[in-house]
Amino acid sequence: MTGADTIARLRGLVEESLAGTLASEAPRVPSPLREAMAYSLTAGGKRVRPVLLLSAGLAVGGKEDDLLPFACAVEYVHTYSLIHDDLPAMDDDDFRRGKPTSHKVFGEGTAILAGDALLTDAFRLMARSRLAEADPGRAVRAIADLARAAGGSGMVGGQQMDLSAAPGSSTAAAVDEIELRKTAALLASCARMGGILGGGSPAQVDVLGEYGTRLGLLFQVTDDILDETGSFVEMGKGIAKDRARGKWTYPVAHGMPAAVERASELERAAVAAVSTFGEEADPLRELARMVRNRRK
Amino acid sequence: MTGADTIARLRGLVEESLAGTLASEAPRVPSPLREAMAYSLTAGGKRVRPVLLLSAGLAVGGKEDDLLPFACAVEYVHTYSLIHDDLPAMDDDDFRRGKPTSHKVFGEGTAILAGDALLTDAFRLMARSRLAEADPGRAVRAIADLARAAGGSGMVGGQQMDLSAAPGSSTAAAVDEIELRKTAALLASCARMGGILGGGSPAQVDVLGEYGTRLGLLFQVTDDILDETGSFVEMGKGIAKDRARGKWTYPVAHGMPAAVERASELERAAVAAVSTFGEEADPLRELARMVRNRRK
Repeated sequence: MTGADTIARLRGLVEESLAGTLASEAPRVPSPLREAMAYSLTAGGKRVRPVLLLSAGLAVGGKEDDLLPFACAVEYVHTYSLIHDDLPAMDDDDFRRGKPTSHKVFGEGTAILAGDALLTDAFRLMARSRLAEADPGRAVRAIADLARAAGGSGMVGGQQMDLSAAPGSSTAAAVDEIELRKTAALLASCARMGGILGGGSPAQVDVLGEYGTRLGLLFQVTDDILDETGSFVEMGKGIAKDRARGKWTYPVAHGMPAAVERASELERAAVAAVSTFGEEADPLRELARMVRNRRK
Repeated sequence: MTGADTIARLRGLVEESLAGTLASEAPRVPSPLREAMAYSLTAGGKRVRPVLLLSAGLAVGGKEDDLLPFACAVEYVHTYSLIHDDLPAMDDDDFRRGKPTSHKVFGEGTAILAGDALLTDAFRLMARSRLAEADPGRAVRAIADLARAAGGSGMVGGQQMDLSAAPGSSTAAAVDEIELRKTAALLASCARMGGILGGGSPAQVDVLGEYGTRLGLLFQVTDDILDETGSFVEMGKGIAKDRARGKWTYPVAHGMPAAVERASELERAAVAAVSTFGEEADPLRELARMVRNRRK
């Protein structure tokens, strides 16, 4: 199987597992909270984070069934962050992936609660998983890693820095820090979680974290490039909003050719990070290629 | 030491531990997120949930140092829920414990993020605690219990039911369900978590959960009584808001004497739940008495 085949297969597994999880939880969650959670979880995301966790876990010899609840959990966390980021008090976005944002469909109160529920239930999925029973030490280390990456010193902190930055005032260094926290921290954690859960050595977990950080920065620069060049139809959301808001991004500051070159460099750096692995890391190499070449 | 002395001592431990945790985390959390988290965490809460967790844990032979990070975590979760409940899109409250609510001080965006960070960091505190290393099986069971109680099928679900209920339309049964989810689920989980972390038997954990549920319902009915009878000075927030909003509460529906009688019954039921314990459960008995007699 090529790396691309494996990634397609893993994405299918994630979709199946998310659907199963949603269906089994639904009876206990009141409406319209249930519908709001499902709406955003099934809005057509690319599942980069769960596929990354699975790919990293498989690269160190982990088992898919053990990894899947954690893969779903990182998608829950990512989805909650999108719902809250889109709120009027934050980025105030009306569209996401071509569909109206959660608060436009369900109202602000339910959108806030849907994010809260997804974030909390992510930890439930991990803590009551089969692996958490069979090897709670691994599970608890993965949970700690995700919570650190997603919390006040990680992703939420990055969102605060983004929210606090006055339009046009951001320095390149400040924006690098925001991108590291907002995007790269969670992706790095997904890679490390896979390494921890799959039974990788501390050195392997470190290497996977390096890979994930570079993939995260690559993801962000391609996102910024697409924000400048994509169309609404391709992106499913408003375009050139960063520039209109006076936000510093790599292509805004340095121009498109430099941004495209930076993306190539980051892809090479991500691939180089896992050079000690053999073909078991081919899906990780493919993932870097796909992130760089994505069109939305 | 009497039960009341123990509770005062445990509350002091919680305050100390929360202050230490905040101070050690602060350097990594950007402003004003850091200040918003600290503002709500140190706004003068009664620390019922962490003291309950500690009291339950000590009743089954747990060690204070092992329990404290989890006690802080449940206070983080409770505090996040207050910040989000107070938002304009939810209950739209301007005051809490006599102080302006988070979004009045820091703005809605930062208030949402402060809640998100407290919720996420709660799981970090638990997952990287000393007990999580020494006995990850207990830690992961406690984490799963809290996540279930706080998530879409628990506290967040209860808040959704509250948000969705049309003014004046709630039935007594629906409101009982909301109170079970919004308040009692988290208190029951605190008691069970103490039992799990302290090494209690499954039967003991069940008994503690029963006690916690009754304490939670008692907490809610005394809250409803105080909403009707308290003053702003006593309560630190707007009064009789439930009645003004057309919300069904026990005293609104059945009158004050019946509500007071129900509070007495719930206190007796909570105490009865732990009748198999000896004096090691005196703090739990005292806690029920204090919750019933509270004036704010």
